[in-house]
Amino acid sequence: MTAVDPRPSATKVPDLLARGRELVEPSLRQALSRLDDRTRLVASYHLGWCDADGRPMTGSSGKAIRPGLALLVAEAVCGAPDPAVPGGVAVELVHNFSLIHDDLMDRDAVRRHRRTVWSVWGDATAVLVGDALACLAGEVLAECDSPYAARAGHALTVATRELIRGQVLDVAFEQRTDVQLPECVEMAYGKTGSLLGASAEVGAILAGADPATCVAFRTYGRELGLAFQLVDDLLGIWGSPDQTGKPVFSDLRAHKKTLPVVWSLEYGGPCGQELAEWLARPGTPSEADVQEAAVLVERAGGREWAMAEAGERVRRAGRALYVGGVGPSIRDQFDQLAQFVAERRL
Amino acid sequence: MTAVDPRPSATKVPDLLARGRELVEPSLRQALSRLDDRTRLVASYHLGWCDADGRPMTGSSGKAIRPGLALLVAEAVCGAPDPAVPGGVAVELVHNFSLIHDDLMDRDAVRRHRRTVWSVWGDATAVLVGDALACLAGEVLAECDSPYAARAGHALTVATRELIRGQVLDVAFEQRTDVQLPECVEMAYGKTGSLLGASAEVGAILAGADPATCVAFRTYGRELGLAFQLVDDLLGIWGSPDQTGKPVFSDLRAHKKTLPVVWSLEYGGPCGQELAEWLARPGTPSEADVQEAAVLVERAGGREWAMAEAGERVRRAGRALYVGGVGPSIRDQFDQLAQFVAERRL
Repeated sequence: MTAVDPRPSATKVPDLLARGRELVEPSLRQALSRLDDRTRLVASYHLGWCDADGRPMTGSSGKAIRPGLALLVAEAVCGAPDPAVPGGVAVELVHNFSLIHDDLMDRDAVRRHRRTVWSVWGDATAVLVGDALACLAGEVLAECDSPYAARAGHALTVATRELIRGQVLDVAFEQRTDVQLPECVEMAYGKTGSLLGASAEVGAILAGADPATCVAFRTYGRELGLAFQLVDDLLGIWGSPDQTGKPVFSDLRAHKKTLPVVWSLEYGGPCGQELAEWLARPGTPSEADVQEAAVLVERAGGREWAMAEAGERVRRAGRALYVGGVGPSIRDQFDQLAQFVAERRL
Repeated sequence: MTAVDPRPSATKVPDLLARGRELVEPSLRQALSRLDDRTRLVASYHLGWCDADGRPMTGSSGKAIRPGLALLVAEAVCGAPDPAVPGGVAVELVHNFSLIHDDLMDRDAVRRHRRTVWSVWGDATAVLVGDALACLAGEVLAECDSPYAARAGHALTVATRELIRGQVLDVAFEQRTDVQLPECVEMAYGKTGSLLGASAEVGAILAGADPATCVAFRTYGRELGLAFQLVDDLLGIWGSPDQTGKPVFSDLRAHKKTLPVVWSLEYGGPCGQELAEWLARPGTPSEADVQEAAVLVERAGGREWAMAEAGERVRRAGRALYVGGVGPSIRDQFDQLAQFVAERRL
C-alpha cells in the first residue's frame, strides 16, 4: 500500500494559479498595447515585465491570484477557463491601479523588492498610470464578446468603489487613535475582500452561472480576501523581507492600524494598554522599540487571534459555496485553494 | 414690421444649458449619495454645492456644459432629453474626476475662485475622490435602465482613456522645449475634445440614434472641444480673473505650452524666436516679463491664429452633422450652441 498524501491537490494550487497567469498575460499585454508608449512602459515596469528603461525582465511579476481565481471559478462552473479571461484581465488591471495609487498615498518606496512607480517617475505619473489602468479595465470588459459582459462590468465597478472606500478608511485611520475592530474589518473587506470577491464573481458571471452561484462565489472571494489580509497583517509584523519584499516589522514602524494591532488594543488587557502607550510615543521608533511592540501584540493575543480568525474566514468561504449549492467536489477544490492562499505557501 | 434678431435662439443657449444642469443635478446628487461621508463631502465641495465644512452653498457650481450637451443631443434625436440623464451624470463625473486629479498634478491651488481639493485636504484625498468619481461614472451607466447602456459605457471608457492620454502629453510637455503644433492639437483633442465628443455621442446613443448619427455627434463634440480649448488658451493669457477664476496671464507665468504659444514658436518668425528665448529664461518671471511675453504671442500672430482656428473648428463641428445626415433645423440649433460655447459668452 502506498502512502496517501492527505491533501492530494493542494500541491497543485501554485500550478493552477501559474496556468491562470499564463492564460491571462497575452490579453493583459494586448490591453496595455492601447496605452501611449510612456504609460505602457511604466505599467509594464510595475507589472514586473521590464526594468525602468524598458528592458524585458522575467520572474518578478506578481502572483496574479485575482485572475487565477476568476479562471478557476469559470472552469468550475462551465468546464473551461476561457470565458473568464477578459474578467481576469480586468481584475488584474484594477488591482494594479489600486497598488500604484496606494503606494503614492502611503509613500511606500518599495514593492515586490523594486522601487514603486511614484518613487521612480514622480507623483503625476503615478496618478495617470493608475487612472489609465482603471479605465482600461472597464474598456476590456465593455468590449469582450460575452452576453454577460455588462453584468460583469457592473460587478467590477461596485467592487472598485468598495476598494477605494477601503483606502479612504485606511488613510483616515492614520490620523486616528480610536480605531475599532469592526471598522478595521470593514477596511479589510474593502481593500482586499472586495476585489477578490469580484474576481470570483466575475469568473462565475462570465461562465454563465445562475445568480445564487455568482453570489456564493463573491462571498467566497470576500472571505478569502479577509483571511488573506489577516495573514498579510501577520507577515507585515513577523514576515521576513524574503516573503514580503519589505523590511521586517515594517507595519509597526509605520504605526499601521492592522487587524492584529487593533484587536490587541481592544481585547489585549494590560498588554493592549501598553501597546496603546507605545503607539502614542512621538518620534521614529528604534529597532528595539518595534521589537518591543511586536512582543506586546503577541502577549496581548493579537497574533493568535489573527491566525484563528484567518482559519475562521477560510471556513466561512467554504460555507458560502455550500449554501450557494455548489457541488462537493468543486467545494473541496476551492477549500484547498482558500487554505493555500490564506497560509501564503506560494 | 418688427426688427428680426439675426440669431434668434442664441440667447437661449445659457437657458438650455441651465435646464440640462437642473435635469441632471438630482441624479448626480443621488449618485454621490453612494459614497462614504468624507468622499461625498469633498466631491460636493468641489462641485460647488457646499463649503469645506459641508455648509450648503449655491451659485458657484460649474456650467455643466457636458451634461447639457448630452441632453440637447438626446432631445434632438428622440424629442426628449430624459434618456440621456444617466449619460449626463456619467460625463460630469468623469469631467470632475479629471479636474481633481489635474489640479493635483499641476499643483493648481485655485479653481472657480475656490481652493482646489488637494490644497484643502491633501494629496491622498484628491487621488481618492478623483478615483471614486471615475468609478461612479461607470457604475451609473452600468445600472441605467436602457438597452443602450453598454454601448454608452464603452464610448465613455474610450473617451476617458483619451482624456488621460491628453493629460500625459500635457505633463510631458512641461519638461520639453520642442513641442510641435500637431502634438499640441492632439493634447487638446485628448484633454477637451474627447469628453465633449463623448457627451454628445452618449446623448445620441442613449436616445437610440443610428451609428452614423452617433459618430456625427461625437465629431461635433470633439471639434467643439477644440474650439473651446483654443478660447480657453486665449483666456489663459488675456482673460480677466473674473472670466477665468485665475490670475491674468497665469498660463504664461506657468510657461504652459498652449496652442497660441506653440503656434507662435513654430510660425511666428522673429517674434516667435524672441518668445522661445523668453521661455528659456530661468527663474520666476516678473509681472512686466509676462506682459512682454503676451505682447510677443500677439505680435507673432498666435492670438489671431487661435481666434481664426476656433472659428474653423466651429465650422467643422457643423459640417460633421451635415455629413452625418442630421436635419437642417437641428444643425442650425447646434451651430448656434457651438458658436456660443466657443465664444464663451456664458
